[in-house]
Amino acid sequence: MQMEQNNSRPANGLISRGETPLNLEMPFSSLDQFITPNEQFYVRCHFPIPEIDDAAWRLKIEGAVESPAEWSLADLRQMANHTIPATMECAGNGRSFLEPKVKGVEWDLGAVGNAEWTGVWLRDVLARAGAKGDAIEVILEGADKGPIKEPPRPPGEIRYARSVPMAKARGDVLLAFAMNGEPLTPAHGFPLRAVVPGWFGMASVKWLERVIVTSVPFNGYYQSIDYTYWEQRNGLPTLVPLAEMRVKAQIARPHIGEIVAADAEYRIHGAAWGGESDVAKVEVSDDDGASWHPAALLSEPVKNAWRFWEFRWNTPAHSGDYTLIARATDSVGTTQPARRVAEYGSYMINHLLPIRVQVR
Amino acid sequence: MQMEQNNSRPANGLISRGETPLNLEMPFSSLDQFITPNEQFYVRCHFPIPEIDDAAWRLKIEGAVESPAEWSLADLRQMANHTIPATMECAGNGRSFLEPKVKGVEWDLGAVGNAEWTGVWLRDVLARAGAKGDAIEVILEGADKGPIKEPPRPPGEIRYARSVPMAKARGDVLLAFAMNGEPLTPAHGFPLRAVVPGWFGMASVKWLERVIVTSVPFNGYYQSIDYTYWEQRNGLPTLVPLAEMRVKAQIARPHIGEIVAADAEYRIHGAAWGGESDVAKVEVSDDDGASWHPAALLSEPVKNAWRFWEFRWNTPAHSGDYTLIARATDSVGTTQPARRVAEYGSYMINHLLPIRVQVR
Repeated sequence: MQMEQNNSRPANGLISRGETPLNLEMPFSSLDQFITPNEQFYVRCHFPIPEIDDAAWRLKIEGAVESPAEWSLADLRQMANHTIPATMECAGNGRSFLEPKVKGVEWDLGAVGNAEWTGVWLRDVLARAGAKGDAIEVILEGADKGPIKEPPRPPGEIRYARSVPMAKARGDVLLAFAMNGEPLTPAHGFPLRAVVPGWFGMASVKWLERVIVTSVPFNGYYQSIDYTYWEQRNGLPTLVPLAEMRVKAQIARPHIGEIVAADAEYRIHGAAWGGESDVAKVEVSDDDGASWHPAALLSEPVKNAWRFWEFRWNTPAHSGDYTLIARATDSVGTTQPARRVAEYGSYMINHLLPIRVQVR
Repeated sequence: MQMEQNNSRPANGLISRGETPLNLEMPFSSLDQFITPNEQFYVRCHFPIPEIDDAAWRLKIEGAVESPAEWSLADLRQMANHTIPATMECAGNGRSFLEPKVKGVEWDLGAVGNAEWTGVWLRDVLARAGAKGDAIEVILEGADKGPIKEPPRPPGEIRYARSVPMAKARGDVLLAFAMNGEPLTPAHGFPLRAVVPGWFGMASVKWLERVIVTSVPFNGYYQSIDYTYWEQRNGLPTLVPLAEMRVKAQIARPHIGEIVAADAEYRIHGAAWGGESDVAKVEVSDDDGASWHPAALLSEPVKNAWRFWEFRWNTPAHSGDYTLIARATDSVGTTQPARRVAEYGSYMINHLLPIRVQVR
């Protein structure tokens, strides 16, 4: 287990998990704002950040459409604009807690954030181009590109691309040019990125340049080899692309190894989120899961956004190590799994994570 | 490049490419019979050969069917039986010629054979169980199983399984209990195997125990991670399951490095095959591809079977190294590619293979 304290921190307070490609996470123990400031929002890159001349940049739409088209950033700003909140979590968030170790960026708890995004609905863009009736998916392609190192891999350089099924594409997917009221920064996908609410971050393609409507399933690298998991179907493991985030509560404070005063009240707090469903309940255990106590949810649910929660803990009178666990249940009754699901591989880390603290 | 002469040969004349799992190929230079004798037919295994009690064995059919059912071997023998020829080639045949080296069994040219198979049509079995109208694929599952070592991999042990689309399943796929008039041997899939004519061998699942009709695409390990290749679609590499064999001519004699008498007639000969299309033409070059000469096709085409060919070569009067190449064209006009296609990865090795010989 890595502890946040051991990592170098850039000036903006984010923790570096790699420079090329750039990967940054927030120190989750500092969580205190429902809207994550842009400079504290985690950054996940697969390739070097592309330099894009926004004057020359165009969004292209092609494939199974009546009228292939392209629009400038000014064109998009002149369409109907919408602002929505969306919590975004990297599918590998929490990977540093996995035993045995698996491949991938060693995220602690901070590859998650909640922002307000402004842009145009993907469905409006699809309607303008006239998506055909047999279309089943929409591929979102970024400008970021590079070679894949590990087999199985396609040869040469590839661009980052991901697809969403037509039902989701015709739903609440936003093509965003602003984040919390500011233009996107290069690290966050300038000039345009997708925001796929309720889904892991890999679907929210940055540096978006091409929308391809397709009538056959897309099996690109990040849809088939990477960002996938195994699901048992008919008694056989079948590879499935990651999609919705999984219900999860994370403890911000105390952090791992924190020293907590004995025989006092301590505010255990954190955030919980759950894919396309709202969070309905958060519980806390201070005895390694033997008993559970309801936490207070600190606001009404906001669609597609995390929910803050707290639990006023009467700390033990006796010094010692204690294990805290939080667990969330969503509005359709799904609770976090107690143990790691092997089929999830290196992703979807939403089993219960014990946080050891010292009471003194 | 490996030369056949350097490999140990079991008593039956096959070349071992591994004992556990068992992998054997024929020495292709010994090619002389249109029907490959069972004891010379290549063997490809992914796991240990399962021991099956044929009295207790049943073929199950389930999934998107009106009436799930199971049949004994005696039941299948009592249904309408059919005998068809089919050439079967391992998708990795010729891998030892790839530079740089890639992962996988180091086959020379002999992971190919042609047999007559006897059994029942898969379509008859589907009709008996009543495959539903929304069914799109048929999964064929074997009894062979084991763990996968390299990521990305499903956890635990998996069974070998592969699917065919419904159109092929309703076509000429045979469930075979006999090979060249003899019951299948354990190495060839006793008591029952699929034979998918025109497709690479990975589709012809051995030790067949379960047929699962499905209305969603199957993405099992051997359908998504292994036995796949990259195809450019919409300018993006997309993972595609291997299916049809690719048109190909192989030279049996002379073999690599063979010493050929100068200023004489030498019978260059071999076999050619091509997926679901017939072979229409074979050509030979003795000057490294600068000029091509038509080879004689030695029989009428037999659907789904290879075609033998020969070229009477007037060898040069001067001693030296010469490069022979054969190339095939199928009945729809597809010719072997001159150079390796990078997207094919470690499979579908059907580019032109130069055979260096010494004329003395």
